[in-house]
Amino acid sequence: MSLLDAPLVVASNRGPVTFERGERGELVAHRGAGGLVTALLGALQRVDGLWVAAAISDTDREIASGPDGGRRDMEAFGSDYRIRLLDVPPDRYDGYYNRISNGVLWFVNHYLWDTVREPTFAEEAERAWQDYVAVNRIFAEALAEEAERADVPPAFLVQDYHLTLVPRFLRELRPDAFIAHFSHTAIAGLTYLRILPAEIREGMLRGMLGADVLGFHSRLWAENLLMSARSLPGVRADLARSRLVTEGREVLVRVHPISIDVAPMRAAAAGAEVAELRRTLNRWRGDQRLILRVDRLELTKNIVRGFRAYELFLHAHPEWRRRVRFLALLSPSRMDLPEYRTYGQECLAEAERVNRALGDEGWQPIEVRVRDDHLGALAAYGLYDVLLVNPIYDGMNLVAMEGPVLNRRGGVLVLSRNAGAYWRLGRHAIPVNPFDVRETARAIADALDMPREERLRRARGLSRLVLSYPPERWVRSQLEDLERARLRRTRWRR
Amino acid sequence: MSLLDAPLVVASNRGPVTFERGERGELVAHRGAGGLVTALLGALQRVDGLWVAAAISDTDREIASGPDGGRRDMEAFGSDYRIRLLDVPPDRYDGYYNRISNGVLWFVNHYLWDTVREPTFAEEAERAWQDYVAVNRIFAEALAEEAERADVPPAFLVQDYHLTLVPRFLRELRPDAFIAHFSHTAIAGLTYLRILPAEIREGMLRGMLGADVLGFHSRLWAENLLMSARSLPGVRADLARSRLVTEGREVLVRVHPISIDVAPMRAAAAGAEVAELRRTLNRWRGDQRLILRVDRLELTKNIVRGFRAYELFLHAHPEWRRRVRFLALLSPSRMDLPEYRTYGQECLAEAERVNRALGDEGWQPIEVRVRDDHLGALAAYGLYDVLLVNPIYDGMNLVAMEGPVLNRRGGVLVLSRNAGAYWRLGRHAIPVNPFDVRETARAIADALDMPREERLRRARGLSRLVLSYPPERWVRSQLEDLERARLRRTRWRR
Repeated sequence: MSLLDAPLVVASNRGPVTFERGERGELVAHRGAGGLVTALLGALQRVDGLWVAAAISDTDREIASGPDGGRRDMEAFGSDYRIRLLDVPPDRYDGYYNRISNGVLWFVNHYLWDTVREPTFAEEAERAWQDYVAVNRIFAEALAEEAERADVPPAFLVQDYHLTLVPRFLRELRPDAFIAHFSHTAIAGLTYLRILPAEIREGMLRGMLGADVLGFHSRLWAENLLMSARSLPGVRADLARSRLVTEGREVLVRVHPISIDVAPMRAAAAGAEVAELRRTLNRWRGDQRLILRVDRLELTKNIVRGFRAYELFLHAHPEWRRRVRFLALLSPSRMDLPEYRTYGQECLAEAERVNRALGDEGWQPIEVRVRDDHLGALAAYGLYDVLLVNPIYDGMNLVAMEGPVLNRRGGVLVLSRNAGAYWRLGRHAIPVNPFDVRETARAIADALDMPREERLRRARGLSRLVLSYPPERWVRSQLEDLERARLRRTRWRR
Repeated sequence: MSLLDAPLVVASNRGPVTFERGERGELVAHRGAGGLVTALLGALQRVDGLWVAAAISDTDREIASGPDGGRRDMEAFGSDYRIRLLDVPPDRYDGYYNRISNGVLWFVNHYLWDTVREPTFAEEAERAWQDYVAVNRIFAEALAEEAERADVPPAFLVQDYHLTLVPRFLRELRPDAFIAHFSHTAIAGLTYLRILPAEIREGMLRGMLGADVLGFHSRLWAENLLMSARSLPGVRADLARSRLVTEGREVLVRVHPISIDVAPMRAAAAGAEVAELRRTLNRWRGDQRLILRVDRLELTKNIVRGFRAYELFLHAHPEWRRRVRFLALLSPSRMDLPEYRTYGQECLAEAERVNRALGDEGWQPIEVRVRDDHLGALAAYGLYDVLLVNPIYDGMNLVAMEGPVLNRRGGVLVLSRNAGAYWRLGRHAIPVNPFDVRETARAIADALDMPREERLRRARGLSRLVLSYPPERWVRSQLEDLERARLRRTRWRR
């Protein structure tokens, strides 16, 4: 049987739903948003699939420790798939999630450290790594159990940097499993990866190499993984064919840029609530042009340099003063990490500095709104003239896709060359080096000055590109890879 | 004629000598130290070669602007070679040297930036880059003139990150020139290199690609260059054979670790002055063991984490308190860059903190001496029990070679896995991840506890390795590469 029709088992740190108790004590499921969830849920529903994730809420934990091993059929909630919530020991979660996943692996893959001073690995990192190993093992054991229960060998789709060890652990438990791992982040090159203690670096790489297929959003990330894996003893790389060979097995390294789920986003944007928000925002903006950024308050997003570029633009083009506003919609993120709190303050301080330097009574150059406001973002997408997406490094960046699909003014996308999205959308955007505020300032000016026809042509181009690659195709491509790997494995053995 | 016997022309920012005026107004030449100078001077003297460098001192500038175009025969100074000092416009020098060479290229190649905040490229960087281009052009034009004057086509050996554009500019002026470029620094991978504005990144890479041969101290740096160059339009890479093809030419990428010049260093160490310094130091140390570091006060050297590791070691092994001292000999470096001044303060503050935390009246755990003290270093090399060399990234690191050659106590080398020297010396050292202070603390403990026999065996191994590859061989290897390139070029054209 082809893996294209096999039962699917997805594993990710956070699942597609979290549960709460309703007023009468009944279970209420809150569905997460985003292309990943949509794409994978669509696929799961086709095949009565299973999604394995860590329990997040208290109610999740209650389910996870229940008699059925945390399994729940989602039929009762109107969906045709199952979930299984894993009861990660609370004393392991901080080490696994905050310290290693978000404090080490996220930092290394986005080049975030001030290397002269940070990181400094000591006992705490060693302990946290043991937590990461333990939680990854819990996931792998749960997946192995599911393989055991299945009538037909399932296809495992393991997601992201939280679960890099799962492919290897699962392979040890089930040598014949079909395993794909997908990295949604940027991936550091080999030299920077040498910052990690050998145990973590090799653990992570060899963990991923347990898969049959490794997926990435862009060629650059895939090549970095190839070059790093190839540096390990016993691993051979065929760069031209993007394959690795280790322990007598083959690992395919593939590029599949994810996309967004347009239909529900459009539906939400067409709703009354967003329409009202859009009207309010439109009044606020008046007859001024709107430069927009929508981001998590995240170290990679390069918010401070964005404000500096805008300031340079206003210096170079005083004719735009009072005729343009910069709206920054920032949602709080990882506020339990001190680096994020500091950075949040720096972003606000920089906006205030620019406002004091260039604003006056009747005109505030930058407006920063810090809150979780998905609907506000949908409203703002409709109205921008320039969308600034300038991350220093970014695995993909979905804002660069959401904006163009909802925008109604032929708005222009200014896009970092270091975002995975650049490889797909770059030709219709104005590309910038995110570290070069002068180039970014020029890009803002060029965007505002761009003739209407060119703006519309580019906006249509962006929209078309996003629509041409629906999330289902992203999942489908991965299953095709896995099927290819299965066929090669059979030949390989002969 | 083989290039092994061709006239040699070396180009580097700083030459082998600088001139001053003596008391009676006569020219006095001060020779620089180091393996590079010795190796290249030895080669130059064999073939009546020429060394082209920027004028540094006022007297240098006087010579540079003289009627003979800055040329000087060194015969009067007891050497059989010539130099040519170039009069770099003073208003270009800061941009070329401080801002681009040391402020951008050095930083990028050693991963030194706090990327969330630095660098931010704006107008100033654009201007400084023009200075860098202009000075590189001055060098290339001088080299082209020398090619013009020579009876036989010379072999050009262009040195380091200050002169990355020289190969290309020289190639444009003299398409048939034989050009080797050698990088003495670490080399960043492609993803981190994307921090640079496209003009600088591509300029630098395409500049280097003007050479026939590119040389590096380690395989890792060579591979990073290969992967980055390969990302440029019109450049093909043969990774297996370590070659690049561009504009119908071939560029060989080669690894030749430099070594130190042992004889003069040993002679100096055997002199009365060093002997006296050694006695003083020996009295100071008493019957305590000595942990030594000798470094420029340089961001890459990882001095703060070295102190932290030592502190961890003392915590884990209180039995070593009062029985060991840490001597840090630090020479000031690049004090015109604010990052270096700040880092110098941080190093001193960290040493003080450890001294306050763990020292007492009779015992100061760390002694820091900040000054240029070459002879003091030679004296200290003789006496260490542990030599700590833990740079975060380092092109090569010569301290790791000097120490073992002069040490008399079977001292142990603790060596960063990210130093170029690690690839040559690693098997006789205790390797450490420079970011892992716990591992470094353990390495210090292991070094101090190592049985005498093993210490001596390793020390002999290190010394033998250093001696087995004299600086002349380093030059010779480059000329052999260039000759190979010449032969391939002839075949290539047919």
